[in-house]
Amino acid sequence: MSAAAIDHPFFTKLVGDKEAASLFSAEAEIQALLGFELALARAQAKHGIIPEEAVPAIEAALSGFTPDVEALAEGIGNDGVIVPALLKQLRSRLDTPHRAHLHFGATSQDVIDTGLALRLAEAITLIDTRLGHVIDSLGALEQRDGAVELMAHTRMQAAIPVSARRKITSWRDPLIRDRARLAASRDDVEVLHFGGAVGTLEKLGDKGTIVAADMANDLQLRHVDHPRHTERDGIASFASALSLITGSLGKFGQDVALMAQSEVGEIELATGGGSSAMPHKKNPVPAEVLVTLARFNATLLAGMHQSIVHENERSGAAWTLEWMILPQMVVGTAAALRLGLMLAENISFKRD
Amino acid sequence: MSAAAIDHPFFTKLVGDKEAASLFSAEAEIQALLGFELALARAQAKHGIIPEEAVPAIEAALSGFTPDVEALAEGIGNDGVIVPALLKQLRSRLDTPHRAHLHFGATSQDVIDTGLALRLAEAITLIDTRLGHVIDSLGALEQRDGAVELMAHTRMQAAIPVSARRKITSWRDPLIRDRARLAASRDDVEVLHFGGAVGTLEKLGDKGTIVAADMANDLQLRHVDHPRHTERDGIASFASALSLITGSLGKFGQDVALMAQSEVGEIELATGGGSSAMPHKKNPVPAEVLVTLARFNATLLAGMHQSIVHENERSGAAWTLEWMILPQMVVGTAAALRLGLMLAENISFKRD
Amino acid sequence: MSAAAIDHPFFTKLVGDKEAASLFSAEAEIQALLGFELALARAQAKHGIIPEEAVPAIEAALSGFTPDVEALAEGIGNDGVIVPALLKQLRSRLDTPHRAHLHFGATSQDVIDTGLALRLAEAITLIDTRLGHVIDSLGALEQRDGAVELMAHTRMQAAIPVSARRKITSWRDPLIRDRARLAASRDDVEVLHFGGAVGTLEKLGDKGTIVAADMANDLQLRHVDHPRHTERDGIASFASALSLITGSLGKFGQDVALMAQSEVGEIELATGGGSSAMPHKKNPVPAEVLVTLARFNATLLAGMHQSIVHENERSGAAWTLEWMILPQMVVGTAAALRLGLMLAENISFKRD
Amino acid sequence: MSAAAIDHPFFTKLVGDKEAASLFSAEAEIQALLGFELALARAQAKHGIIPEEAVPAIEAALSGFTPDVEALAEGIGNDGVIVPALLKQLRSRLDTPHRAHLHFGATSQDVIDTGLALRLAEAITLIDTRLGHVIDSLGALEQRDGAVELMAHTRMQAAIPVSARRKITSWRDPLIRDRARLAASRDDVEVLHFGGAVGTLEKLGDKGTIVAADMANDLQLRHVDHPRHTERDGIASFASALSLITGSLGKFGQDVALMAQSEVGEIELATGGGSSAMPHKKNPVPAEVLVTLARFNATLLAGMHQSIVHENERSGAAWTLEWMILPQMVVGTAAALRLGLMLAENISFKRD
Repeated sequence: MSAAAIDHPFFTKLVGDKEAASLFSAEAEIQALLGFELALARAQAKHGIIPEEAVPAIEAALSGFTPDVEALAEGIGNDGVIVPALLKQLRSRLDTPHRAHLHFGATSQDVIDTGLALRLAEAITLIDTRLGHVIDSLGALEQRDGAVELMAHTRMQAAIPVSARRKITSWRDPLIRDRARLAASRDDVEVLHFGGAVGTLEKLGDKGTIVAADMANDLQLRHVDHPRHTERDGIASFASALSLITGSLGKFGQDVALMAQSEVGEIELATGGGSSAMPHKKNPVPAEVLVTLARFNATLLAGMHQSIVHENERSGAAWTLEWMILPQMVVGTAAALRLGLMLAENISFKRD
Repeated sequence: MSAAAIDHPFFTKLVGDKEAASLFSAEAEIQALLGFELALARAQAKHGIIPEEAVPAIEAALSGFTPDVEALAEGIGNDGVIVPALLKQLRSRLDTPHRAHLHFGATSQDVIDTGLALRLAEAITLIDTRLGHVIDSLGALEQRDGAVELMAHTRMQAAIPVSARRKITSWRDPLIRDRARLAASRDDVEVLHFGGAVGTLEKLGDKGTIVAADMANDLQLRHVDHPRHTERDGIASFASALSLITGSLGKFGQDVALMAQSEVGEIELATGGGSSAMPHKKNPVPAEVLVTLARFNATLLAGMHQSIVHENERSGAAWTLEWMILPQMVVGTAAALRLGLMLAENISFKRD
Repeated sequence: MSAAAIDHPFFTKLVGDKEAASLFSAEAEIQALLGFELALARAQAKHGIIPEEAVPAIEAALSGFTPDVEALAEGIGNDGVIVPALLKQLRSRLDTPHRAHLHFGATSQDVIDTGLALRLAEAITLIDTRLGHVIDSLGALEQRDGAVELMAHTRMQAAIPVSARRKITSWRDPLIRDRARLAASRDDVEVLHFGGAVGTLEKLGDKGTIVAADMANDLQLRHVDHPRHTERDGIASFASALSLITGSLGKFGQDVALMAQSEVGEIELATGGGSSAMPHKKNPVPAEVLVTLARFNATLLAGMHQSIVHENERSGAAWTLEWMILPQMVVGTAAALRLGLMLAENISFKRD
Repeated sequence: MSAAAIDHPFFTKLVGDKEAASLFSAEAEIQALLGFELALARAQAKHGIIPEEAVPAIEAALSGFTPDVEALAEGIGNDGVIVPALLKQLRSRLDTPHRAHLHFGATSQDVIDTGLALRLAEAITLIDTRLGHVIDSLGALEQRDGAVELMAHTRMQAAIPVSARRKITSWRDPLIRDRARLAASRDDVEVLHFGGAVGTLEKLGDKGTIVAADMANDLQLRHVDHPRHTERDGIASFASALSLITGSLGKFGQDVALMAQSEVGEIELATGGGSSAMPHKKNPVPAEVLVTLARFNATLLAGMHQSIVHENERSGAAWTLEWMILPQMVVGTAAALRLGLMLAENISFKRD
């Protein structure tokens, strides 16, 4: 089943990205959720909230756990979240006394939002690395072709000549700024979410803060004052950063598609897409798809910002909307960087 | 890999829909593409464009064809479309003389757009049927609970009492109109796309029209004057129809979520989602997710309308954007109808 | 004050449209609201709900009424709607006994939605007329230049030659279909909204239907079963029709901008925009702005569909969102048609 | 003419904001454009590019200049930008020798983008100040009502009690972070745009950098390496910051509307909107409109990100789209802050 092109076996190498998509696989999600539960148990045992011996018991139950995916899907269909069904499966692997020690004081959103944070941290690293590669590759292109003179165009009309250097700079500099914005969004995204039912850790008495701090340390996430269950500004801001990256790459793609036009020919593509009807053609496929991905993320961004309007202490409606949108934006961004690198490495400015 | 919740094994029963998603599987797409190629060969043989004996040869090559999906993905990565790689695999199953008879005079967009039309025809039937069920179910609810008096609310404040009948009517009537709009969009969607390289069927001489008419007849699609490769109004209009359906269901969901509030209690849910932290709660999960899906489709609709701006005789950028968006809207709509039916069958208006 | 370019004195002739914008002026809105109140009084007097003599009194009060706009703005700031403040001003012009006869049994949404319907009816006529002009003008262009041969382009690369006729058809045919869709949306839009506080006309006893029917007749609007206060499918569907029009024109504009490129030169513009830095340039301004308006309406359309999710019997939040968006879409559409006509009349296909 | 509610005389006090809108008036725009031209002349005279005496001549021509707005509108309709028509009017006030010294070496986009930067700098100050007021006011609310206990709600169902303090924190903290993001966007927005025809300052020889640095200093903007005509990441990022602010306020408004429901009554509004049909009602108008403005900006944000895809050295299509969207987002944000402050000052948490 793959209604979304981003997941479709056919489209992986066009608009998808295996590495980024793997962060959102069922396996990766389960691992991240288990990571939360283990860190929680450890920190609670350390501070005497659950008994010490619960930790090895929980660790044993989690290690080697293979979920019954069908039952999880059934559970999500009922509960709207994976956690009750997952806990049921996990608790069946624990002796009765320890069942209550698993997930003690936590709520579904704690596990799910933290599990997402853990994977977005990896996504940011992946995107940052690829941004570096595209930036470097454009630098190498400038080094090689920067002195080529070409015609500039304003409002779709020939204007006066500029150097390729000037053009390449206008592609690379936004990516450098986008990279800094991405780095800044780590603070928004790599955050521990731990608040219990309504964000007050009411079951942990006066130990909420210290337990949360230890968990954050264990999971290499930021410990913040209070959980941000309903404060979606950080995640929406991260989505904006993604859309800026694909937008900047889309501008690069648009320019390449325009410069590679048969009649313009300012840029040459080392390889191009084939046509079933016209074998003579060399289509600037990656350039076009960069435009596609820019428009895709720009479109989706609106939905992420709609979902900031969160009702009360937890909005099922707004939260589920994020799940439907954000992973696709991450994968779309990774795909755009993959294509952007391919393009930067495969174009050359034509010397007369 | 399932970055899109709509495809994710976990979320199938929440925001996904197996039946609708199956229309967009690799298998379904291949079958539809093969259906086009066979209809093309038949019509061309009938009119003497390719030899009669090419038809059984092509039929044999297509039947029982199992694609090398990895090679198709590789091909799409290069060409931006599946067709060149698919033809290569198919032609390897044909004797040399017939290789040129497969796909003669056609272009990638002919096959892909027609293949989509075939599956959207099924999607419309599925959605139409489910709309009928939801409408009927709301009718039954009115029959049973219509006389119950409840408080109306304007601008989030209690106003004056109305009957449940009045409320149910305001949920059902839009769906009845949406259903008529969906039916009207068949004319836009169930269309044969056959134009060759640039929409002129230049390789078919004076037989383009008669071949196209026969193909359309064979495939049970409409034969139109000239192919609509670059005229995306029909597909965008269909996307609007989908978003109206999810919007109308979202209003129903929003009302149920508001009426089922603990403090309001005008509606009772037969079942509700469980909470990992608060076992006493009964969450109106399907009602919330109807709001999610309404906002999801509303968001995506903008992208479908952006992609009407199509460059020249074929825009890789705009066309690929449709592929990334439309299937998700179809599945999202089917999911909303599934949830809408579940909700209509499981709520009851409370009598004092 | 004109934060919206569509209203800005500078931009009227670029992205604005005086004629369409006049439908949304303060004066036009007041006239439409007064029209509702008068039709209401007439129909209620006819059926004995208010005394006969109230009609001439109300008519006198409404005729020549000049609103205190500042007080209306103040009222809207408090109440979220214009009606309470407007009624206060109108009632001060009536003798005490007749004050209660004005707006009897009606609610703010009745007046405002009906007032909008009256003006959208005019907007549809205006848009329909202009669509006819653009379609005719493209027909004349085909008549004159249709036989010119030019290079077709797929995926931004030269493909094979086509006739200008083929190209023009792909611009005109979507507009013909869009026009049919617009006509179909009259049924959705030109509707009387009259339901009283919560859509039940509870103050009119058994005379609600007959009064509404008479009012609809008087105002030349459709009388429907029950008021559609909370059923926003019709207005959202109308917004879709607008976005299809601007989308189709945007595709036309995009093609012209591409064909008019200095290096391509397949189309010549009779006139072009000047540049402050490069006097030699002739910029395809209307072609570009058609793309702008297509993207503008496509963007806004998402908001109109978000606003279908309406809480209970009246959502201040969703309803106000429509007010912020729809008039701009109407004006943007009218502007696009104005520019589209200018373009169709001012381009010529170049013969070699 | 006011198709946009944000400009409409009726809606100023609801969704508009006089102070913010004044930054986008014709007068403010002209002043900003003249500011650029004067700074340019000064810096060019200082570095010997134009004669010293051109400066007082230009200063005199600009001071007291009253534009012929009709002619400007006509010019924009032709050229797509105001600059050629404006220069024509200004040059008619200069002696022939100095006419060429005005706007020497500059292009329309230099003047317009810099003119926008000057006004956005003021907008940021206005928004920042108001953010401070809302944050302070929520602090005062916490001070007064923070200890009140109320019922928390997750997924639209009563959960367990929390303190008002916890709730208020979740409204205020996002605004504190949004304020930091806004401050960070000054670097993106408050930038001098000066590049000449295609961004190379080709007419200034080796003095481009020093002239630009002096102009930036004069105008209190940042001097950057090279002009960012086609690099729209900064402006799109600023738009994201605006949408985060309205989103965070929308969440506050949504909560207040839910808590003020008749059946819930956890919050009391000092004043509320009146109803024309139900005088007993007290509608939470500002709370609802905060939701409206959040959805409005979230919708528009997609368009700002679409416009990052800029063709070549200047895209008329993408640039004009920004003009249609960004000012409305600024005014919408200012309006939301005005309403947010009103709400924060007028709600009280109910003690049992």
